[in-house]
Amino acid sequence: MDITELSRGLDTIWVILTAAMILLMEGGFALLEAGFVRQKNAVSIIMKVFVDIAFGALVFFAIGFALMYGKDAGGLFGTTGFFMEGDLTHLNFDISIDTYWFFQCAFVIAAISIVSGAVAERIHFRAYILFTIMMTGFIYPVSGHWIWSANGWLAKLGMIDFAGSAAIHALGGFAALAAAIFLGPRIGKFGPDGKTNIVPPSNLPLASVGAFILWFGWFGFNSGSTLSATNGSIGHIAVTTMLASAAGCAACILFTIFRYQKADPPMVINGALAGLVGITAGCAYVSHAAAIVIGVISGVAMVLASERLEKRRVDDPVGAFAVHGVSGTIGTLAVGLFALPDTAAHKGLFYGGGWYLLGVQALGLLVVSVWGFALTWGGLQLIQWFKPVRVTRDEELIGLDVGIHGVPAYSQEPDFLDVDKLRSQP
Amino acid sequence: MDITELSRGLDTIWVILTAAMILLMEGGFALLEAGFVRQKNAVSIIMKVFVDIAFGALVFFAIGFALMYGKDAGGLFGTTGFFMEGDLTHLNFDISIDTYWFFQCAFVIAAISIVSGAVAERIHFRAYILFTIMMTGFIYPVSGHWIWSANGWLAKLGMIDFAGSAAIHALGGFAALAAAIFLGPRIGKFGPDGKTNIVPPSNLPLASVGAFILWFGWFGFNSGSTLSATNGSIGHIAVTTMLASAAGCAACILFTIFRYQKADPPMVINGALAGLVGITAGCAYVSHAAAIVIGVISGVAMVLASERLEKRRVDDPVGAFAVHGVSGTIGTLAVGLFALPDTAAHKGLFYGGGWYLLGVQALGLLVVSVWGFALTWGGLQLIQWFKPVRVTRDEELIGLDVGIHGVPAYSQEPDFLDVDKLRSQP
Amino acid sequence: MDITELSRGLDTIWVILTAAMILLMEGGFALLEAGFVRQKNAVSIIMKVFVDIAFGALVFFAIGFALMYGKDAGGLFGTTGFFMEGDLTHLNFDISIDTYWFFQCAFVIAAISIVSGAVAERIHFRAYILFTIMMTGFIYPVSGHWIWSANGWLAKLGMIDFAGSAAIHALGGFAALAAAIFLGPRIGKFGPDGKTNIVPPSNLPLASVGAFILWFGWFGFNSGSTLSATNGSIGHIAVTTMLASAAGCAACILFTIFRYQKADPPMVINGALAGLVGITAGCAYVSHAAAIVIGVISGVAMVLASERLEKRRVDDPVGAFAVHGVSGTIGTLAVGLFALPDTAAHKGLFYGGGWYLLGVQALGLLVVSVWGFALTWGGLQLIQWFKPVRVTRDEELIGLDVGIHGVPAYSQEPDFLDVDKLRSQP
Repeated sequence: MDITELSRGLDTIWVILTAAMILLMEGGFALLEAGFVRQKNAVSIIMKVFVDIAFGALVFFAIGFALMYGKDAGGLFGTTGFFMEGDLTHLNFDISIDTYWFFQCAFVIAAISIVSGAVAERIHFRAYILFTIMMTGFIYPVSGHWIWSANGWLAKLGMIDFAGSAAIHALGGFAALAAAIFLGPRIGKFGPDGKTNIVPPSNLPLASVGAFILWFGWFGFNSGSTLSATNGSIGHIAVTTMLASAAGCAACILFTIFRYQKADPPMVINGALAGLVGITAGCAYVSHAAAIVIGVISGVAMVLASERLEKRRVDDPVGAFAVHGVSGTIGTLAVGLFALPDTAAHKGLFYGGGWYLLGVQALGLLVVSVWGFALTWGGLQLIQWFKPVRVTRDEELIGLDVGIHGVPAYSQEPDFLDVDKLRSQP
Repeated sequence: MDITELSRGLDTIWVILTAAMILLMEGGFALLEAGFVRQKNAVSIIMKVFVDIAFGALVFFAIGFALMYGKDAGGLFGTTGFFMEGDLTHLNFDISIDTYWFFQCAFVIAAISIVSGAVAERIHFRAYILFTIMMTGFIYPVSGHWIWSANGWLAKLGMIDFAGSAAIHALGGFAALAAAIFLGPRIGKFGPDGKTNIVPPSNLPLASVGAFILWFGWFGFNSGSTLSATNGSIGHIAVTTMLASAAGCAACILFTIFRYQKADPPMVINGALAGLVGITAGCAYVSHAAAIVIGVISGVAMVLASERLEKRRVDDPVGAFAVHGVSGTIGTLAVGLFALPDTAAHKGLFYGGGWYLLGVQALGLLVVSVWGFALTWGGLQLIQWFKPVRVTRDEELIGLDVGIHGVPAYSQEPDFLDVDKLRSQP
Repeated sequence: MDITELSRGLDTIWVILTAAMILLMEGGFALLEAGFVRQKNAVSIIMKVFVDIAFGALVFFAIGFALMYGKDAGGLFGTTGFFMEGDLTHLNFDISIDTYWFFQCAFVIAAISIVSGAVAERIHFRAYILFTIMMTGFIYPVSGHWIWSANGWLAKLGMIDFAGSAAIHALGGFAALAAAIFLGPRIGKFGPDGKTNIVPPSNLPLASVGAFILWFGWFGFNSGSTLSATNGSIGHIAVTTMLASAAGCAACILFTIFRYQKADPPMVINGALAGLVGITAGCAYVSHAAAIVIGVISGVAMVLASERLEKRRVDDPVGAFAVHGVSGTIGTLAVGLFALPDTAAHKGLFYGGGWYLLGVQALGLLVVSVWGFALTWGGLQLIQWFKPVRVTRDEELIGLDVGIHGVPAYSQEPDFLDVDKLRSQP
């Protein structure tokens, strides 16, 4: 046993364990979404999360990983590593390529899962499978290459996106927005009189547990992105992540009490997530105080964005855009303001770094958002040519669980205490 | 890479990962409590857990950590480290202050969450926020300083409380008892004829998952309290934790079969937790056999305490006092009996250590319990002067979900298979 | 701090953390099973999981561990280590015996939990406790000794079963089959006309979360089985585990769309698990491509096996045999085909290793399956002589929750918005 081997083992288990935590976030997404949608669509949204993992992992293995982290071509995309074969020697990590792939696989699955919420209750299952293949095989890996590959063009400009406020959340959020607009609102969501109907969440306890699981996984998401257990920032990352999420959640509690005279449970749940999304880009680079500021702004902005979206008659059933798109935007830009000296190549505006970093962050954000929006729109249009992206009116009214998957989420035996009646069973 | 850096990295990831596990316990508390209370209050109890995390983390960051672990003043409280600034050089750990704070933050959140169960179904949400600030900013940090700070007066006497049977569970349990008495029982819990009405848990599967998540987190709680991955006790701690919880659970299965002719699910769930609470103080210091004994006693005592509390017309909806207060007491005292030689400064009575350690444990327990009870009572009284601590009768009858938060926990569309009716929707 | 101590600490936390992940799988089993069975039996199945942990851990501590890993007698069973005492010097690991026990304890609990699903909705609770004692104290430890103890007779022949496709899943699966046949089908499952009645799952979202938790735990299960953090295979294991489960899940999505014209949620859930079971034996020894093949075959075979079992009128409510028995069989045999050169003593048929390894795998599988089936049957017969293994007809009709445990899984207050009525409460 020598020290190099020990160091490699240490980094390996750190990355594997945090990647597993990120994968558990899929359980969080599933619960959050199943709890927020109507009961008649609870299974269908969970089935989409299974698609995220199953097809996401396989497609990222076959194609996505190569486009994202293969040998660079012009800063635009990777060219080697399909099926994890070919020359990957430029990925010169302490950990093995397998270990690295596993962590990145957990990330791509998280990215596609963001979209699954926005299309809830009305996308056709087979169309969703096709879109998942596009997202995990092309859309995410290419923009991911620009930001996170050593030779990506945005990376070379100095863009900072530690664990993916832009690469994952803004991309996923704007893809979700495009998909929500493309599909149109759910039947009955907006009345003919211009009135917005509230669709009460079917199961708020489930949604809450989803948030707690996501919260847990996020500590793996952010801290694990160091890819090295001896990175001195790990503790700092955990603290900024904790503070930003607490601040986002507390801000939503107080803001909704102030605005609606009651702490609004779905907003409180999403407030914690907004804080988490907001701190994801800068968790390693900003101070404790900045983390709290980022969390507060992300939380309040999420509430306002949710309202605004409803006013514009965009139907995003679980608030995917308000949480991931808006907070991802805030988080990416915040790095340009709050990046501490000596943590990255450039420092933030508030620390005398001038406008450069903020400009790069804004540019990167713009590019990623447009890319995510446009390719999602185009991709869904392409699918539409072959088969309908939206379920039929009847399927939607019946609900996708019974309509598409042939089984309800919940089954009861209302008479299970009536023994006499039960006794007549064969 | 040298060995010191490697060692620091190893300890860092150990503490971060176990702290994340402890934070996941909040999901466990939320489910356990939401499952045990009535459906009409399931969201409100979960909102309290969000308050625990959000306000708990921020207040502990601003004030609590300093009072608990800042530079000692007379063994009574800390004086530096507000907002994690100022002189903290006396915290001379292998891990960074950030990492240490993150772990301690997970602990304070666990402590306040114990109280959230006892006040379920009747405390006002805003009052609960104020109480959370008191608990995480003052009550817990000060008594925590006495036990866990190197210069705390109980620590100097030699009190042993490895992961907090006293500092967390007895404190939280007696605070819960005070709050339950202060608030009075739920409407309808005790009939005018002196009869106790059973309030059936709304969702036992949810409550059970809560217990499984808490169980998982507890291995982080106890083993992680070593704060060092090279501490030779880690394996032993995991085993005593496993055995005590298994014994507590098995004891409750057999004891309720014997006493009620059926294995009583809520008691079985709480039995596992009672075993976990009981072993928390001594997990590193007692033998395998002692762990089983502690688990059995904790489980049976929890059942008897629950009965006794009901007889005395104290309404603790989820059994917070019976689980945390009673088993915390047992666990703290058990160290005085069972502490093995050469594991701590003093050994237990059964190993020839005499009465000293048992006396110190009893003293510490008494002090912490009285402190928790008295300051909770006083704190709630203080809040009462400004705004009502208990919801109105109407809000309580309607349920806090709709009454306070404006949304029910569960929403159904009972007609979702009646397509003709659905077709008439706009 | 020297390097040996550091290495021991590293291995210790790796094993403790992965063992905790495996224990969390119990929450996964509980949810999966509670979601798949009818609502009137949801608590009773979860109570069985509590029995698995509580009695499983205590019995394995007292007896099972010694029979499995004690000093070998003739390759057949262990003879030392009862109550973790006596000579265990032959267990010459880097980690402590305590740490090793904790990991193995998590395994035995997983093995018994497989059976809990197959006997759902009709086994008597006390009979299940007795069977759990047999399984964790004798059946599993003895066959486990053959495969995993250094001197076990199957181990000496060169049988490869990295994390237990045979030792845990085939054993548990065939035990589940025996128990399902022994108990007979649930009342009403098969009509007198030979028709099979579908019993709709009571709560598919819960079942899905169960699967996500199991998925998470499985990364601990497979990767943690290295017992060493510096084992170079950890990353590879994580990738093969991910790919096989994704392939199993994707295969079930596509296969059920093809076969039933809809992606069938219970099959999709079980498909992911089938892929996980299938890769468990070979995760460290097979290529990425082979992992995908194993996953696909396991998934499709699970669907076909479920159908076949129904046709033969065997009632296995959660598909325990189809998932664990069938995929465990496939996974064990697949090692004989796909084992890469230089990963183990023998290589697979497809890599020029000839028939030897495949023969040994087939032999080991046959022995373990027959052992699991026969001893389960015999054990239940033995219990039957003393008390009924199956609940009464009335208890089954009412449901085991109310019938045996005296409490329903879910309680509602349907009138909780009728304030006038509520106001009449005392």
